[in-house]
Amino acid sequence: MPKNVNDVALSELRRDLGACLLSSEEDIFSSSFDGLKIERRPSAVIKPERAEQVGRALALANEHSVPVTTRGVGSSLTGGATPLAGGWVLDVSGLDAIDVDAGNTLVRCGPGAVVADLQKKAFDMGLFYPPDPSSKKFCTIGGNIACNAGGLRCVKYGVTRDYVLALSGYLATGEFVTWGRATRKFATGYNLRDLWIGSEGTLGVVTEAVLRLIPQPSNRRTFIAACPSEEIALTAPVALMKLGVRPSIIEFLDQWTVDCLQKYTGKEIFPGLGANPVLLIELDSPGTSLDTESKILEDWLAEFSLQSSVAKSEEEAEEFWEVRRQGSSSMKKLADTKLNEDIVVPLDRQVELVGFVSSLREKSKLKIGVFGHCGDGNLHVNFMYNESDAEETNRAVGALRELMQKVVELGGAISGEHGVGLAKTPFVRMQFNDAEWRTMKSIKQAMDPKGILNPGKIFDVFNPWEQKKVSAPLSWERTEEDLP
Amino acid sequence: MPKNVNDVALSELRRDLGACLLSSEEDIFSSSFDGLKIERRPSAVIKPERAEQVGRALALANEHSVPVTTRGVGSSLTGGATPLAGGWVLDVSGLDAIDVDAGNTLVRCGPGAVVADLQKKAFDMGLFYPPDPSSKKFCTIGGNIACNAGGLRCVKYGVTRDYVLALSGYLATGEFVTWGRATRKFATGYNLRDLWIGSEGTLGVVTEAVLRLIPQPSNRRTFIAACPSEEIALTAPVALMKLGVRPSIIEFLDQWTVDCLQKYTGKEIFPGLGANPVLLIELDSPGTSLDTESKILEDWLAEFSLQSSVAKSEEEAEEFWEVRRQGSSSMKKLADTKLNEDIVVPLDRQVELVGFVSSLREKSKLKIGVFGHCGDGNLHVNFMYNESDAEETNRAVGALRELMQKVVELGGAISGEHGVGLAKTPFVRMQFNDAEWRTMKSIKQAMDPKGILNPGKIFDVFNPWEQKKVSAPLSWERTEEDLP
Repeated sequence: MPKNVNDVALSELRRDLGACLLSSEEDIFSSSFDGLKIERRPSAVIKPERAEQVGRALALANEHSVPVTTRGVGSSLTGGATPLAGGWVLDVSGLDAIDVDAGNTLVRCGPGAVVADLQKKAFDMGLFYPPDPSSKKFCTIGGNIACNAGGLRCVKYGVTRDYVLALSGYLATGEFVTWGRATRKFATGYNLRDLWIGSEGTLGVVTEAVLRLIPQPSNRRTFIAACPSEEIALTAPVALMKLGVRPSIIEFLDQWTVDCLQKYTGKEIFPGLGANPVLLIELDSPGTSLDTESKILEDWLAEFSLQSSVAKSEEEAEEFWEVRRQGSSSMKKLADTKLNEDIVVPLDRQVELVGFVSSLREKSKLKIGVFGHCGDGNLHVNFMYNESDAEETNRAVGALRELMQKVVELGGAISGEHGVGLAKTPFVRMQFNDAEWRTMKSIKQAMDPKGILNPGKIFDVFNPWEQKKVSAPLSWERTEEDLP
Repeated sequence: MPKNVNDVALSELRRDLGACLLSSEEDIFSSSFDGLKIERRPSAVIKPERAEQVGRALALANEHSVPVTTRGVGSSLTGGATPLAGGWVLDVSGLDAIDVDAGNTLVRCGPGAVVADLQKKAFDMGLFYPPDPSSKKFCTIGGNIACNAGGLRCVKYGVTRDYVLALSGYLATGEFVTWGRATRKFATGYNLRDLWIGSEGTLGVVTEAVLRLIPQPSNRRTFIAACPSEEIALTAPVALMKLGVRPSIIEFLDQWTVDCLQKYTGKEIFPGLGANPVLLIELDSPGTSLDTESKILEDWLAEFSLQSSVAKSEEEAEEFWEVRRQGSSSMKKLADTKLNEDIVVPLDRQVELVGFVSSLREKSKLKIGVFGHCGDGNLHVNFMYNESDAEETNRAVGALRELMQKVVELGGAISGEHGVGLAKTPFVRMQFNDAEWRTMKSIKQAMDPKGILNPGKIFDVFNPWEQKKVSAPLSWERTEEDLP
């Protein structure tokens, strides 16, 4: 009987990279799912210790047409790291070097570098890496690059893409490439660097990133406010900007979410006020500008909010941020499954979007909360439902589809920072016309002709709600870290 | 006799877009060259008034395999708008709408919008579009997007790419596409927007850009200083950043250039000091931070510069900037031809780079000046020579090749903001390995299979110094506006 080609591939893999193979049942299982909790078994898990091993693994995979799924710690919420077609998982979490170059205000790191670790090392040298997804304590730079992660500070500082100077890594063929340079300007040839960013592991594998750093802000001041309406809250970012206030963070929780979290904690954020939309605002202007901007903000809050509070200490600021986290945790008590949509709309369409969610909530009788980064129009719309209830599941999926159509109509994007992965595939086709869709696919075809890199992601429709979910925790969930 | 296919194409063009055709000898001639001054006659010049006409022109061109070169005002210094293979020129200077959306802090504009006009309209609404190439009074947004133009404020504010939210336009086939959205975050599908930016008209034609705007800085303060060494001057950006000073502009002129301009103007910038490297610094921090940073900067200058001066008025600041412009103009008196290289190196390799230029100058006996944006490592290395002197021309080209090799060795880029066009094609291959080169070409092939968009640019070697130059002025040169 002829040897199965994958067996040949596997034996060559063992021959060349045997020392990097993780083959226990535990290893295979834990690499078979990510934050989406849908399990697909890989045939092998490769954990390189050096970049060249990534190249070797890809060369072998490409030769034998073996699917390859790259993985950091599997924090993707959309199934970006699910090995849908089996094959090999490339676990790059071991490529976690972090090397701050203060003289050039940049950092070189591997894709497995944990974001918070990198931020800490930069901080220790007076420097700042602003993109800060809520999962930063465990998520990796490689994953952040794969989906152009954002976070809370985008409104002032931008997203991952705004900090990547250069990427080195491997094509599907296993050939080494570098896109961009460790320089702030680059106008030579095509920008493959930014094409790789946000391509969710489907066009190549990053083994080193050069990220720029900026000076560490010296001041922070945090405010929390209850607003009389969602409109006041959502128009705050532009209103404040016109007054000369540039928050580093401006987060929104809708009335429904606040009501939910207040029931969960058993106390009101502002005692006696009931449930109202809430804003969390951070200012980090330098020197005396902080007082100037704070004064303008306080005057605005005095006029437009119901009540507000400024944190007088780090600990108090932490309490304010705990409110934000509770917005997310409290919803998990309502049902067993969450659809966490991170849509984006233009700033001046947020009011309409939230109004639309209200009507969806009434119509569908579903539990839907909205909270997020209202300074950049990136709102998390969370649908809670019981996946064992087929009827409720259908209602949730229908409402989700309506939401996505509305978002696209409003000139927005179906994903602002989580990527498409598997979870958004039922909706991504709404975002593009035929020429755009064809162009993206032709680029995929040009860069990965055998289609080995993370197959099934972005372009092929997959309905996650039809799938059984794994109940096992991911490594970082064991510490009960919460994701928004 | 069968009709020539281009005649068929041309007659269809006349039928469909007759009202947009410019056909006088003057029109054909003025569209046949750009800032590189190498002339190639197009068969037709199309000047659309509406975006859809761009689509129609491309569809016809693609059907009949007619080369198409897109043009703003032809300010490209590298031949980016030279219709090398003849065919049709698409003059998009008429698509010059500028529509500021203050509510969303963005601006929608056509590719023909003049950069300074856009900046003025934003300014009138309290907003700021920072990328400011020296040619801003006449260059267009479309051209800026084509080569990811930079300018003086990159060190603090970034480049064109950092402000483009969305691009609409047409593929080679004439199909309409939009990449990105008018939102600060976008994580859906491949980033064709950033692939288009810097692709020099070879992957599509932009008909609308959505650019983000930021609040207008309220303060500006300008300094000029003579430094005792090139090293002190070139290490100033990082030294100042460590002290908490973030200039909006920090420009460098090397000693040779200063000597040249002082001979040209007949007076010394700092009387009695002779020729020394010079720094021009602008601070634009808000409120009282300006005084704080100025104090730190003045202390640093007192310690490290030979002499310095702060502008006490707008007029005086203008005089400082005139010095910078004279750096460029003065060199034009030395010979009839300039090779203007806008290389980039990592910040901490600038000293080595300028030292290398000194040795090149000695070895080659050529007139070479270095000045530019030392805050981001993007230095303009200008070689002056007489193109009628074949021997001197050879020496200049040889020195240029050595410079490019050095730049690539130092981890830099052969172009930081001007693009490759025709002029850098002899060197661009040094920048990439085989896999990178092949990948870029495969993307070109995927997006423009017939190769109609701006053929001959980036990938095919063209030696501009072997070509006769046109002596006619471009439209903006008639006002004797100077380019650095």
